[in-house]
Amino acid sequence: MKDSHTHKKILPSACKVTDDICLPDSDLPRVVIIGGGFGGLALVEKLKHKEVQVVLFDKNNFHQFQPLFYQVATSALEPDSIVFPFRKQFSGYKNVIFRLAEVEEIQPSSNILITSRGKVHYDYLVLATGTTTNFFGMDSVAQNSLGMKDIRDSLNIRHMMLQNLEQAAITCDDDERDALTNFVIVGGGPAGVEMAGALAEFRKYILPKDYPEYPASIMNIYLIEAIDELLSTMSDKASSKTLKYLKGLNVKVLFNESVSDYDGSEVTTKSGKKILAKNLIWTAGVKGQFPKGVDEKHVVKGNRIKTDPYLKVEGFKNVFAIGDIAALISEETPKGHPQVAQVAIQQGKYLGESLLKLMKNKHIEPFYYKDKGSLATVGKRKAVADLGKFRFTGYFAWLLWSVVHLISISGFRNKLMVGFNWAVSYFTYEKSNRLIIRNFKPKSLINHTKN
Amino acid sequence: MKDSHTHKKILPSACKVTDDICLPDSDLPRVVIIGGGFGGLALVEKLKHKEVQVVLFDKNNFHQFQPLFYQVATSALEPDSIVFPFRKQFSGYKNVIFRLAEVEEIQPSSNILITSRGKVHYDYLVLATGTTTNFFGMDSVAQNSLGMKDIRDSLNIRHMMLQNLEQAAITCDDDERDALTNFVIVGGGPAGVEMAGALAEFRKYILPKDYPEYPASIMNIYLIEAIDELLSTMSDKASSKTLKYLKGLNVKVLFNESVSDYDGSEVTTKSGKKILAKNLIWTAGVKGQFPKGVDEKHVVKGNRIKTDPYLKVEGFKNVFAIGDIAALISEETPKGHPQVAQVAIQQGKYLGESLLKLMKNKHIEPFYYKDKGSLATVGKRKAVADLGKFRFTGYFAWLLWSVVHLISISGFRNKLMVGFNWAVSYFTYEKSNRLIIRNFKPKSLINHTKN
Repeated sequence: MKDSHTHKKILPSACKVTDDICLPDSDLPRVVIIGGGFGGLALVEKLKHKEVQVVLFDKNNFHQFQPLFYQVATSALEPDSIVFPFRKQFSGYKNVIFRLAEVEEIQPSSNILITSRGKVHYDYLVLATGTTTNFFGMDSVAQNSLGMKDIRDSLNIRHMMLQNLEQAAITCDDDERDALTNFVIVGGGPAGVEMAGALAEFRKYILPKDYPEYPASIMNIYLIEAIDELLSTMSDKASSKTLKYLKGLNVKVLFNESVSDYDGSEVTTKSGKKILAKNLIWTAGVKGQFPKGVDEKHVVKGNRIKTDPYLKVEGFKNVFAIGDIAALISEETPKGHPQVAQVAIQQGKYLGESLLKLMKNKHIEPFYYKDKGSLATVGKRKAVADLGKFRFTGYFAWLLWSVVHLISISGFRNKLMVGFNWAVSYFTYEKSNRLIIRNFKPKSLINHTKN
Repeated sequence: MKDSHTHKKILPSACKVTDDICLPDSDLPRVVIIGGGFGGLALVEKLKHKEVQVVLFDKNNFHQFQPLFYQVATSALEPDSIVFPFRKQFSGYKNVIFRLAEVEEIQPSSNILITSRGKVHYDYLVLATGTTTNFFGMDSVAQNSLGMKDIRDSLNIRHMMLQNLEQAAITCDDDERDALTNFVIVGGGPAGVEMAGALAEFRKYILPKDYPEYPASIMNIYLIEAIDELLSTMSDKASSKTLKYLKGLNVKVLFNESVSDYDGSEVTTKSGKKILAKNLIWTAGVKGQFPKGVDEKHVVKGNRIKTDPYLKVEGFKNVFAIGDIAALISEETPKGHPQVAQVAIQQGKYLGESLLKLMKNKHIEPFYYKDKGSLATVGKRKAVADLGKFRFTGYFAWLLWSVVHLISISGFRNKLMVGFNWAVSYFTYEKSNRLIIRNFKPKSLINHTKN
């Protein structure tokens, strides 16, 4: 008996000759988007219900809200509050198809994309593949530290932190206990600053309750920055206030310093400092990631893909790049636009409109970025904001930060979850459940126990 | 510079001569509990604030609420709603210490416990180590299927299911699509029945929304039971109603049948049936798990440890067993008590009181189990309940089930989270976010893609 065979041939045999991946039959032009980050998602939203077939490939089945990764890392939010399934988002978008697959290569001469699940044909291709952590070739750091570019990174940081705190409770060795409880964060941009603030808050409010065996002073937090200011892309006021807030939270900020080596237990800095720490979080650099088939001549600094003012990859008629991966180099933006969510969202919206015009042979304008400002939070109820000519700091900036982020998160349920957790956290200083569900074992930890 | 060394010697050097694990100095008798399930936790609650030092070892930093694993597996609840960190639970219990470690061996002659982090001394030892999935020696099944005895199992089932549904959307091969979407659940006890009901509900309400490319009929759900009734420990009314409910949900129940082989894609049953299914969930058996050092002569069927009527392991003065691992064999319970949460909780409470009496040389009574009844839910708004002489089924039983489970879950936040998700689910038929965060790759899936 083969019960399951009774359903044979219920789906139309829809694959085109050039496709290995099953897609609905359609005479509409097919726009294939690689990557469902801020840029890819904004593009889908512009193309939904239009006369195109949209196929989104992503290696995850969810969109990630990167700005709140540090809150997942410090157990303030659960991952399901800040990542959102594409299929839920696209429910009711009849012309939008999601396919879970890794993209391996593009073959622009034949308009073919090669994925981990086979080939697929495109009429228009959009690279929205974003960036990954850049360790600048330092293998020892790459092997022993954790980045913050994926929700799994955040969960790994959480589990590293909680496991190390548990081990510190067990060990009778003072040096080992110090190493297990000390944190070094590399990079004084928004990710590093927000992470340092959140850790300091954890030390202040959670550590004494969960680990009564420790004095709060046991957990040292270092923030290492290569130049002489934090949040260097923001205003001077924002930078100096941020430093003041972090110092108030007892974070040790080291300027003009960088990491030269890390063995998993001891950080060595360029100037020769040694810091015992089994927790190293790396937010000091990113590099573009994209499939094979992009010619070297289109790749610029930071492994980004050079585009023309219309976000088209030079030399192609139908291949585009948006978001962190795209470098639109012009007189106003000699290094390309900043790699932030706002740029990606505006590029996604712009490209959506452009593609529809292109298909109708209408005139299109070049992409123009409207800077809506920057925000960063530092611990509890404090933040810095640059909005046009206005600079806010402190409680009001923090409220603004909270509202902006809550509005930006996809989905009603997620907004509610994040809002609920923040409210509980605000009034009680209690965070959500601190669980070690992943069996995270950094190499440096495997052999250090007694038996 | 070694900044972190400034905190040297801030913690008392508290380890006893026999301890490798740092524990606070105390003259109180030390009760070491291995395992923080229902039994271990109930025992801790009885011993908190008493004149004993309680040390709980667990390989996880959280208690797991097993009865709702199937809801995590089917994306109805997030894991943080049904697991609860010990440190949060024990906050304020000054005589209770949690240590994250795996226990490897007991040395009863010297009152020493050997853990993955070193040795520790005990005055009283309680084994509350529970059970693990029993595949009865069938390696092919063990390698290719998933059990339901740990929150990670639930997450693995969820990710297997969502990944297979995504792959089914990609493939153009009808047989592969059938195999990817079919589910076989083995075992008609509460875990299997509740899992089958929840999957059928997922198929009915979620599949059409998230996967509009499929007809709902594509996902076949089989429930395989070795004897001729479901929920055989409950009343006949409960068993027959459960069967009726499952049939109403279009679950294919196979009685007097068992699995003889499974290659990851095709299930072979004892009678020779073949079912294409890449999703096999095994709830058909458990076996006790405990550290080395327990003499063979104390081990009975199901790998349980035989105790006297006071839950003491025979031959020892100070070693006890509670919960699923314990087999108190008497005239009334020739096979030991049923392996359910209620027995574990009552044994934990009983042993807590007994230990306190023992320490004061007071008289203790043998353990007596008071059966409060059984409940099982089948899909949405339907359940069966045996309470003493009363048998309920349908909507009222479901309400009762909901209330009982909500009350039993640890922690106000968790109750709120579960309550909230259930309410949303009840009114909207929408479940929480369906995320593939673990990179789950069962062996059977690794080599079946096209490239």
